Amino acid sequence: MAIITLTTDFGLKDHFVGALKGAIYKELSDARIVDISHNISPFNIQECAYILKNSYKSFPQGTIHIVGVDSEATPENQHIVVFVDGHYFITANNGVIGLIISEIKPEKVFEINLPNTTNGPFPVMDIFVKVACHIVRGGTLEVVGKAFEDLKDLRDFSPRIADDGKKIVGSVIYIDNYGNVVTNIERSLFEAYRKGCTYELHARTSLITKILNNYSEIVNYDLERNKRKGAGDLLALFNSSGYIELAIYKSNLNTVGGASTLLGLDYRDTITINFT
Amino acid sequence: MAIITLTTDFGLKDHFVGALKGAIYKELSDARIVDISHNISPFNIQECAYILKNSYKSFPQGTIHIVGVDSEATPENQHIVVFVDGHYFITANNGVIGLIISEIKPEKVFEINLPNTTNGPFPVMDIFVKVACHIVRGGTLEVVGKAFEDLKDLRDFSPRIADDGKKIVGSVIYIDNYGNVVTNIERSLFEAYRKGCTYELHARTSLITKILNNYSEIVNYDLERNKRKGAGDLLALFNSSGYIELAIYKSNLNTVGGASTLLGLDYRDTITINFT
Amino acid sequence: MAIITLTTDFGLKDHFVGALKGAIYKELSDARIVDISHNISPFNIQECAYILKNSYKSFPQGTIHIVGVDSEATPENQHIVVFVDGHYFITANNGVIGLIISEIKPEKVFEINLPNTTNGPFPVMDIFVKVACHIVRGGTLEVVGKAFEDLKDLRDFSPRIADDGKKIVGSVIYIDNYGNVVTNIERSLFEAYRKGCTYELHARTSLITKILNNYSEIVNYDLERNKRKGAGDLLALFNSSGYIELAIYKSNLNTVGGASTLLGLDYRDTITINFT
Repeated sequence: MAIITLTTDFGLKDHFVGALKGAIYKELSDARIVDISHNISPFNIQECAYILKNSYKSFPQGTIHIVGVDSEATPENQHIVVFVDGHYFITANNGVIGLIISEIKPEKVFEINLPNTTNGPFPVMDIFVKVACHIVRGGTLEVVGKAFEDLKDLRDFSPRIADDGKKIVGSVIYIDNYGNVVTNIERSLFEAYRKGCTYELHARTSLITKILNNYSEIVNYDLERNKRKGAGDLLALFNSSGYIELAIYKSNLNTVGGASTLLGLDYRDTITINFT
Repeated sequence: MAIITLTTDFGLKDHFVGALKGAIYKELSDARIVDISHNISPFNIQECAYILKNSYKSFPQGTIHIVGVDSEATPENQHIVVFVDGHYFITANNGVIGLIISEIKPEKVFEINLPNTTNGPFPVMDIFVKVACHIVRGGTLEVVGKAFEDLKDLRDFSPRIADDGKKIVGSVIYIDNYGNVVTNIERSLFEAYRKGCTYELHARTSLITKILNNYSEIVNYDLERNKRKGAGDLLALFNSSGYIELAIYKSNLNTVGGASTLLGLDYRDTITINFT
Repeated sequence: MAIITLTTDFGLKDHFVGALKGAIYKELSDARIVDISHNISPFNIQECAYILKNSYKSFPQGTIHIVGVDSEATPENQHIVVFVDGHYFITANNGVIGLIISEIKPEKVFEINLPNTTNGPFPVMDIFVKVACHIVRGGTLEVVGKAFEDLKDLRDFSPRIADDGKKIVGSVIYIDNYGNVVTNIERSLFEAYRKGCTYELHARTSLITKILNNYSEIVNYDLERNKRKGAGDLLALFNSSGYIELAIYKSNLNTVGGASTLLGLDYRDTITINFT
């Protein structure tokens, strides 16, 4: 039986998430429901997409992802179900799909048009749950609505290439639980322009000349403890999602701070890499 | 197999919720456990009741709801199990049941009196889990204790009707994840007194003359984008639980604020509707 | 089928927890996954150990606990799997095991050495999940690596006994969701030195002469309501984990405060008990 995941901005205090799960279990007594996140910043499509983009692929093929962010149907924000890369996404047409799947072309996009449903303030429960359970039971997308052509194509800013390929100008796309700063510069892009050159990564007043493969690579274990770099030191690495990330080794946003607070970097700020 | 839901003020950091789930799985290896909320404000019966009231009905009949708020047994706060509206509630007799079920009369109320349990500081784990698993296994309530008559009858303030039915004076009962302000004025009450009249809703210095059926109804999609109402504008609507709610369209408590912060409305504050 | 629990400092907003669960379901379609906590303070081994120590025993024998705190493999922080007290722990060798199991001797400790895995920044997903699923499927520890002798033996400060056994000097080891202050003084130690004496518990300027068995024992229900101790009053009790704890009856950190804020007690602060 296919898994249903939930990604919403409902928060974890209110009744919304519980009510949603109850409604799923009412339709499918042996449902498998996985929370991806309910702490998306309200109505933040970019954040929602970042989190889904970096988690959906670890789920089995055929998983159904309910997206409960900015989900009211309007003439400009239709309810849709998309089948792409082996996964189903049930969402409003608010641009989140383009941000999640980037260059992959969806196999199927249907506008949801269920009979006997009203356009109320809680469509995730009233409509998305019904569609998800329909798919879990093996139903086809053709039944829930009609083919849809106008998938909104929101795109994240891509890094800009300058100086005849000697410079990549990227930006901050996410700040995580540790205050680590994720850029939109992917490893593949970096390697394509690097071509064996040395490089300098500039973030505000900081300069980094080596991008690591994991956090603890900053520590030289051959040195005595008090001569090593370690907790509190700045590093850059290719993170587990393939992006270049700036991090403070063993940071804690509630105490010593993280890369975001210590470097003063926020969403959309610029990160530059120069090849020499 | 019946679902067990959990609604507590334990928070999501400490070991309490994990320990609780472990104890359930120890008794029922194929238990189905659903978190409704663990972020109830400590000892806040009203909040707990609001959240359960608006979620329990979406679960299948026969679901067992464990209520872990203010749950220590005392001479004035007995452990009870209540069967009402097709659902079981295992809780202390702290008034939460009356707030959840309002006018519905419970079918069965039993005081829990298990042998070999002590009156320790974690009764949800030591006692409520045992009762829940007993019910899941098909056990009867008669086995866990004796019929109980003194269900504490806490009630929320009801809206007051004034001026010969020309005025409804309600109050704020909940502020949600978006900062939206939920009142205790239900749609049915509103319609009963409205009788086709026009109306004015007053909340502090704000005046609203239309109550919507969903959030995006505030946007007039026939107008050009820059002439529309939209994000940041105040609205009132009948929310998915049937209450009149004040909301800021696409609000975010962490950035632009929500209706609660922008209107200065808090729990118990007054909202008035005048019919003319 | 064995349960897999998750205890991490990943937080509940980012994609990490969702991605992790997806990866488990990809390997084991009918996995049973239980979140213990994802809100451990970043890299805080003591906090992680406290939470696991007080929850793992309530799970069935054979449960597999994934520990996702400070989990990168380094020459000084090997990936290990430990079988102890009937439970499996998959973790880095960062000292957390010694803090969890105290005096119990592990039956088996293996260093994890899987072929075809790289030392990346997300070992909980790349490595720990594989080991957990291997154990769930009935695989032996011998397959995942080789026996390991150098289990890091971090220990919490134990209470100090002074004045020929007339004084116990303990310290704060945890502050919970209610602001309650948990000390490292266990009931068994207290009783061993008490020997029927009277006692005084000192915490900063506060003095307590009775340690209760539950929170509401502070209330004398024979008195009229306005003459009773109750909400807001300080108490000490043996908590559900067997430690002496200081609490404010019906506290709320967000409103009236808790014992930690009202007494000014923080992690590592001293609590003294004098027997007379």
